[in-house]
Amino acid sequence: MLKTSKTRPFPTIPNPTDRVRVVRKIDGMAGIARELKRSGKRIGLVPTMGFLHEGHLSLMKCARPKCDILIVSIYVNPTQFSPGEDLSGYPRDFERDEALCERVGVDIIFYPPDTEMYPDGFQTEVSVKELSRNLCGKSRPTHFDGVTTVVAKLFNIVLPDIAVFGRKDAQQAAIIRRMVLDMNFPVEIIVSPIVREPDGLAMSSRNKYLSTEERRAAPVLHESLRMAKSAIESGKYAFPGPVIEMMKDRIIGSGPFEIDYIEIVNPDDLSTVEKFESGGEVLIALAVKIGGTRLIDNIEIGT
Amino acid sequence: MLKTSKTRPFPTIPNPTDRVRVVRKIDGMAGIARELKRSGKRIGLVPTMGFLHEGHLSLMKCARPKCDILIVSIYVNPTQFSPGEDLSGYPRDFERDEALCERVGVDIIFYPPDTEMYPDGFQTEVSVKELSRNLCGKSRPTHFDGVTTVVAKLFNIVLPDIAVFGRKDAQQAAIIRRMVLDMNFPVEIIVSPIVREPDGLAMSSRNKYLSTEERRAAPVLHESLRMAKSAIESGKYAFPGPVIEMMKDRIIGSGPFEIDYIEIVNPDDLSTVEKFESGGEVLIALAVKIGGTRLIDNIEIGT
Repeated sequence: MLKTSKTRPFPTIPNPTDRVRVVRKIDGMAGIARELKRSGKRIGLVPTMGFLHEGHLSLMKCARPKCDILIVSIYVNPTQFSPGEDLSGYPRDFERDEALCERVGVDIIFYPPDTEMYPDGFQTEVSVKELSRNLCGKSRPTHFDGVTTVVAKLFNIVLPDIAVFGRKDAQQAAIIRRMVLDMNFPVEIIVSPIVREPDGLAMSSRNKYLSTEERRAAPVLHESLRMAKSAIESGKYAFPGPVIEMMKDRIIGSGPFEIDYIEIVNPDDLSTVEKFESGGEVLIALAVKIGGTRLIDNIEIGT
Repeated sequence: MLKTSKTRPFPTIPNPTDRVRVVRKIDGMAGIARELKRSGKRIGLVPTMGFLHEGHLSLMKCARPKCDILIVSIYVNPTQFSPGEDLSGYPRDFERDEALCERVGVDIIFYPPDTEMYPDGFQTEVSVKELSRNLCGKSRPTHFDGVTTVVAKLFNIVLPDIAVFGRKDAQQAAIIRRMVLDMNFPVEIIVSPIVREPDGLAMSSRNKYLSTEERRAAPVLHESLRMAKSAIESGKYAFPGPVIEMMKDRIIGSGPFEIDYIEIVNPDDLSTVEKFESGGEVLIALAVKIGGTRLIDNIEIGT
């Protein structure tokens, strides 16, 4: 079900002249991008795996006023899934995605097939070494190499001036920022806030996998983060350990959850926070399995 | 000693208005590149490690008529040297390089310090997996990852339309081509022929390391390649094995050489050639140590 934004309502009748253009070939997309750059246009990119929700749309709305041409990529990137993960079952609905993109004023959807993105003989990898190895990288060791490789490809094809990523994937955002810095990509990275359901659950295409019961229990992830935020801001805790234990108890006590990790880290380099320092910033990030579904969430806190 | 080209003599009095511009900061270079692209200029890049010889100059002369602005990077990239290799002793002479660049009409030298290229926290790597592992990759396992990482950085900073590499580093050229294809860099790669000394030795900054005696013996590398070319073109050999043995005998018999490898491979994917097929192309590539100096050379042959 589509939820409309209150601040910027979707037009009910799309203007045919504003129809979003769908490009499937890399050469076609690259040619358009070069032409746009030559004519001085500012390109914005929102990379997605499709099955769009309000979180994705918020990234597009964030990008829209910052660029002349807004390009959304929709590509379920196989190299960021490990064997046994949900690649084949990952939810897809291109027609719905296309309609949603049109409503928020996307100009071009880049929607390449796998044969375009990973032709025979493909063998190059872009890897952000340390940042990709902790947090989600522990249980998904090749995931972020897949992400950085495909995002680097998208940057080279789409030639964006700005690219917008969601804060829900906080580690991904930190890794992309590091890649852009290290590799000197001429792209400004913008990280846009998490969009949540009314009960606090962070929006995710994977929420679709949850049973009614799991869905009912899932908001405890955000609740535990808010509880930790209050606890840290109260100044009663000098060390992360007890805060993490409190969160674990809260989550485990609320249903059939299996905690992958709960960590309190520096938001830039994702290094473990040993002690809360006054005036700093910390990121609490978690990944928790509910049934077969792995959900992530996080919160940034000033200490 | 500087050898002038007969086909395009160097002007003896450089025109002060044609002085090459030296840029040391990444932000400065990136800003210039963006401005050049915005004004529709075609940028050519010749990446080098400096200590320029006729081989490098031939790359610049190849690039010059193909672009509006010719940029040469001079950077002894530490990440492509392994511990124990000749990084600290690698020959450098920036003033001479600058004069040579000026004489062949280079517009900009990008000459960054290490602190610009690899700032604190740097941790990203671009790797062309299979192609980087054979030939030179066997004895220098991290070398090509260093090359592809720095070349990807240079592409993002300089934004070239074309980039020219030398055929002497045939494996490097194949790897860069693969990287550009896989990562969708909007750059055309041109590979320019090997430039040789009158006695056949391929030009290399490392030739400087050779003693008089070693220098006198070194042309046997090229002689062995030419001998193999004649043998293969004669049609008398169906399999590479005997040709390689013949080359080894010739080289070993000529002085204190230590053969790292001699291989006959497909020039595109560097896969080992099992049997000579009529109408194909093969690359014979070798790396040989003379004293402490490791030299490479190669030849392409139609079969």
